[in-house]
Amino acid sequence: MAEQVHEEKIARQLRRVTEALDSGVKAQASRLLAGLSAAEIGDLLESLPLPKRLAVWELVDPELDGDILVEVNDRVRDSLIGDMTEQELVAAVDELDLDDLADIFDDLPDAVTSTVLNSMDRQDRERLDRVLSYPEDSAGGLMDPDVLSVRPDVTLDVVLRYLRARGELPKVFDLLFVVDRSGRYLGGFKLADLLTRDPASSVADHMDRTMRTIPVNMPASEVAVEFEHLDLLSAPVTDAEHRLLGTITIDDVVDVIREEADHSLLTMAGLDEEDDMFEPAMRSAPKRWVWLAINLVTAFMAAGVLYLFEPTLDQIVATAVLFPVVMSMGGIAGTQTLTLMVRGMATGQVSAGNTTALLRKELAVGLMNGVVFALLVGLIAVLWYGKLKLGIVIAIAILLNLVAAALAGAIVPVALRRLSIDPALAGGVVLTTVTDIIGISAFVGLASIVLLAQ
Amino acid sequence: MAEQVHEEKIARQLRRVTEALDSGVKAQASRLLAGLSAAEIGDLLESLPLPKRLAVWELVDPELDGDILVEVNDRVRDSLIGDMTEQELVAAVDELDLDDLADIFDDLPDAVTSTVLNSMDRQDRERLDRVLSYPEDSAGGLMDPDVLSVRPDVTLDVVLRYLRARGELPKVFDLLFVVDRSGRYLGGFKLADLLTRDPASSVADHMDRTMRTIPVNMPASEVAVEFEHLDLLSAPVTDAEHRLLGTITIDDVVDVIREEADHSLLTMAGLDEEDDMFEPAMRSAPKRWVWLAINLVTAFMAAGVLYLFEPTLDQIVATAVLFPVVMSMGGIAGTQTLTLMVRGMATGQVSAGNTTALLRKELAVGLMNGVVFALLVGLIAVLWYGKLKLGIVIAIAILLNLVAAALAGAIVPVALRRLSIDPALAGGVVLTTVTDIIGISAFVGLASIVLLAQ
Repeated sequence: MAEQVHEEKIARQLRRVTEALDSGVKAQASRLLAGLSAAEIGDLLESLPLPKRLAVWELVDPELDGDILVEVNDRVRDSLIGDMTEQELVAAVDELDLDDLADIFDDLPDAVTSTVLNSMDRQDRERLDRVLSYPEDSAGGLMDPDVLSVRPDVTLDVVLRYLRARGELPKVFDLLFVVDRSGRYLGGFKLADLLTRDPASSVADHMDRTMRTIPVNMPASEVAVEFEHLDLLSAPVTDAEHRLLGTITIDDVVDVIREEADHSLLTMAGLDEEDDMFEPAMRSAPKRWVWLAINLVTAFMAAGVLYLFEPTLDQIVATAVLFPVVMSMGGIAGTQTLTLMVRGMATGQVSAGNTTALLRKELAVGLMNGVVFALLVGLIAVLWYGKLKLGIVIAIAILLNLVAAALAGAIVPVALRRLSIDPALAGGVVLTTVTDIIGISAFVGLASIVLLAQ
Repeated sequence: MAEQVHEEKIARQLRRVTEALDSGVKAQASRLLAGLSAAEIGDLLESLPLPKRLAVWELVDPELDGDILVEVNDRVRDSLIGDMTEQELVAAVDELDLDDLADIFDDLPDAVTSTVLNSMDRQDRERLDRVLSYPEDSAGGLMDPDVLSVRPDVTLDVVLRYLRARGELPKVFDLLFVVDRSGRYLGGFKLADLLTRDPASSVADHMDRTMRTIPVNMPASEVAVEFEHLDLLSAPVTDAEHRLLGTITIDDVVDVIREEADHSLLTMAGLDEEDDMFEPAMRSAPKRWVWLAINLVTAFMAAGVLYLFEPTLDQIVATAVLFPVVMSMGGIAGTQTLTLMVRGMATGQVSAGNTTALLRKELAVGLMNGVVFALLVGLIAVLWYGKLKLGIVIAIAILLNLVAAALAGAIVPVALRRLSIDPALAGGVVLTTVTDIIGISAFVGLASIVLLAQ
């Protein structure tokens, strides 16, 4: 295919590696891969069909294997793990940070996890257990239990000398966490204070005791909101007794934000963000059955309503030609309201406090657009079929359906959430069922009364 | 409304502030607001209908006004600016960082911008001009031109003493940027090296010359991918001559990622992420006309095809009852493929290098699911109407439409992009037009041939 004017980085890397593989020059492909980070190679692997993916995987520097396994999504990880020996897997995951290891722990074969656990010291094993004991999408599941903490009574000079002796810093280092002897969190101590305050003063002199902490059971989506709201780079995670359990850093939060976004978009189409884009059709096709089957049920419900009005469809064929217009306008208008609600609910901006106001506004929009498009569609119908009554009937149906669409678009997601059903997943189905049935009943039903009565 | 089990932070803040306002105790509302960050108040303002929004805005500490204006989306910002005097606006934006000021500069009244420009020194005015000269969604538009840079020949001790004398650090400080005398970028110097290496050694001894820089014209979405791929906290922005122009920090990138995600989701429903959720219906309704009108055209195209087959609809009313099932299954199946493609194209994971492989896989999925649902729907039709031929006709139509849906779902977004049309915006419309027309033609067309020929 022809090149686009601007080729994105991933597209470019994909093209170059694929070209190198296709021309059979493995050394060239290896050289290209050597210049890439673990996350870049992970993205590349996700973008390749299975045979090529495994060919690239063979060429990757084994040093990066562990980090790449952490980066890729669940199904792609399965495909890579399936291609590795036990020894390779142990070597790959042995050097991972505890929070990263925890992320992929459940996907590893038992033989590998037991070898890894046996090679750990007791403290690390306990820390890993702690992270694994929290849900993956909670603060506890996100946190790194390996924290650099300081006591309040040491001087800045001691801290600086300690860091120098240690020789390395945590991957994100804007804060040090201050704890008492029993591990209770006291406050945060800013890097800026470490570097600019009197080295003879103590940590307690400068630490910020008001800094908010992240409760260990906070859902990941709220952790993300907290980081965005407070422009955090790292934050302490504490339990109910205010013990410091770990830290969450911005790089993990960025992944949460990206995954959440993918989730809303894909879930609205009945897809799963952890799926492999190139999963074999034999396994991918059945995953879409549920969604298609649910839609089939709602489509047959609409057909059932049409069946009730068969005499009308039979006698006034114009209703059969035009009712899809009524259905489709309702579906589109309702989806706009629904999408606004789903987005707002995902970010927390739509809640009990403002749904009434939003409903009122969406209803007003539905009413206004209902009038506008009722007149337009009515006019077209009159011009097309030359029947004034048909035009009036379809206009009334459009108006009713657009108002119903606004109502359903605003109420359905709130009701689903109350029932603990993901509005992104089920909202569209319930909504179009409502607008289909109201659209058909209003149009073909009215037509039965007004036109057949002639 | 009843409380949910888990109330999200934004929901809680919204409820409390609304309750305080409703009960008329302004002091209480002020107290609640005093505990919130600028971004939190921004989210809150976006979540309130206009009268309450302005009531809260009056109560906000003027010190935060500028930062809040930066946080809220374009239409909400307009509503807040409209409520402020020139003096208030000048005071609000006077203390903003240059990159933040640049973000909202175009939204400010001319009188305000000229006052602000006049109060700036020449260097700042030039820097602001530079940021404003790049598109908002490019590295140049994102960067902060106010960079802390060092020369390669100074010792670490000098750097540490300089920072101490300065008394504050940049908001994200994991790197210092090393430049030569003419401002050319030489490399990055890590905080870890500053803190752990010999203070008598020079910056040049430790700086990383291989660190990638961000070209000033790189699109914001790629900047975000770069930050995610390399786990960056800050990065240098350079021009073609390798001059250091500014830095981009992770907090700005997080905003880009959130906005991009909103964009894909809302654009697929023909909405705009910069809109005010509570915009008056009079202004909100017309914005949705374009989308509804486009859909109306495609709905009438489907109706036009039905019109061609009016004799069939008239004589075999079962086709009128059942064709929405064929249309709707095609639409749903195609939307699944389309959503996968739109998501992949937004992240860069779908490109010329793998569309053929993806198309092949989606086609196989469409064929498999086509067979499964063709049999199912055919069976239901036979059971319902007791006509074997009707079942065979609808089964063939479903199969054809699901294959066409897979083809269209994969090809339409690629084609739109080649034409520089946003696939998220136009993909759904083009797709359902294709599946509607193919679905109707296949089912009602076949029915004309097979059933009317009886």
